[in-house]
Amino acid sequence: MNDKERRADDRFVCNDRERALFEAGIKMGTLYHQFVGTPFNRTSIEGLENTMANAIKVQPYVEDAIVRIDRSVLPLGDDEYSYCSLTGTMIDAVISIRINESRVTAEIRYDAELDYPLMYVSDVS
Amino acid sequence: MNDKERRADDRFVCNDRERALFEAGIKMGTLYHQFVGTPFNRTSIEGLENTMANAIKVQPYVEDAIVRIDRSVLPLGDDEYSYCSLTGTMIDAVISIRINESRVTAEIRYDAELDYPLMYVSDVS
Amino acid sequence: MNDKERRADDRFVCNDRERALFEAGIKMGTLYHQFVGTPFNRTSIEGLENTMANAIKVQPYVEDAIVRIDRSVLPLGDDEYSYCSLTGTMIDAVISIRINESRVTAEIRYDAELDYPLMYVSDVS
Amino acid sequence: MNDKERRADDRFVCNDRERALFEAGIKMGTLYHQFVGTPFNRTSIEGLENTMANAIKVQPYVEDAIVRIDRSVLPLGDDEYSYCSLTGTMIDAVISIRINESRVTAEIRYDAELDYPLMYVSDVS
Repeated sequence: MNDKERRADDRFVCNDRERALFEAGIKMGTLYHQFVGTPFNRTSIEGLENTMANAIKVQPYVEDAIVRIDRSVLPLGDDEYSYCSLTGTMIDAVISIRINESRVTAEIRYDAELDYPLMYVSDVS
Repeated sequence: MNDKERRADDRFVCNDRERALFEAGIKMGTLYHQFVGTPFNRTSIEGLENTMANAIKVQPYVEDAIVRIDRSVLPLGDDEYSYCSLTGTMIDAVISIRINESRVTAEIRYDAELDYPLMYVSDVS
Repeated sequence: MNDKERRADDRFVCNDRERALFEAGIKMGTLYHQFVGTPFNRTSIEGLENTMANAIKVQPYVEDAIVRIDRSVLPLGDDEYSYCSLTGTMIDAVISIRINESRVTAEIRYDAELDYPLMYVSDVS
Repeated sequence: MNDKERRADDRFVCNDRERALFEAGIKMGTLYHQFVGTPFNRTSIEGLENTMANAIKVQPYVEDAIVRIDRSVLPLGDDEYSYCSLTGTMIDAVISIRINESRVTAEIRYDAELDYPLMYVSDVS
């Protein structure tokens, strides 16, 4: 741990496991609010998924991030207006956080019954 | 608790305290990534602070949100280019989450030594 | 005109009328891509409309901006998940740009037949 | 031209050249307000540039988009906090719009004297 990391650590009143949950939440908020609204089409969708995953991976304490955008929303036409704007309900992602020995897995997935892109904790250890 | 809330709860593998930490993180990510880039000036800064706080308060399990933007960044001129674009380092906020008996307070504040807008947990109970 | 404005002007190869059209487009892109994804509910919707309008008004050469969010999307429930996330199709706005004697009015409005939140120029003079 | 494009065209009161200027502005606003705030580092910067360019290219009437992020901002450290958050002043881009025979080139580039990421029209024909 370097000075910067130690300094940041000092601000936290909770243990590693609890902090990992907080960090997982931050990353979920990032994924949604940074990228919702982004224009994409069939050709650019994979690059957008990678950019979204990387925007998460560069942040503190992220071990892995997998992002998938729902392909069923892609329009069939090929005119000037046949592209998509990313919404929260199209995002399906799994983010893994690790702080020392504590690990948290969080997911975002559209829940049709809730009609809501639910962010939840699927594993803590 | 209604059906929707129960359904969402079922997806979580952690207790209220842990979930409150996750929810606090989500709100921090929202605050930063939704609003960074927003143009504002001396006249509109207070309205922007309120809108940011409200965007947090309407989300699940938020008890309170106080947002303050650093006024020292406001330019003095009054020409067409004298306004600001919100950056993370200008944001100072406190968010309180409550899930049943568990409460979490999280803050974002620019740390000059880290040169980083640090998001951290300042209270858990 | 002050030095900053003159300096900016020097970069443009087009006349006032043409530049006003370009500036109108910038503001339309701002409105959509800055705010899409913002959480709001019945209580905060008016404040959000004002904040969006002000984020446009502080930018160069804006004479007026009126923003209205479609209220029919507001959910009826009052549980933790009963709020909205702004999408482009909910935005209805009119932006007026003026550069010297040139004026442009641009609008964004959901076009049901196109199924697209169309941004267009409704007046130039 | 298909039905959708014709329907959109009907809303415009200006000619192709004027509309191309408006469309160029929209794309500039998109580039800035969609992506400012995105976390990136040395490894992910090129992918982010491509994703930004593609988010422009999929939109109506874009012939080309080249996006470059200032590499001098990348931090040297390799701790958890050594990454960047995109700001407007780091973006350098050229966008080409074409509507029938009308072409517009617009650029965004940080102007040190203005201390402003200026968006301007560099060519119209």
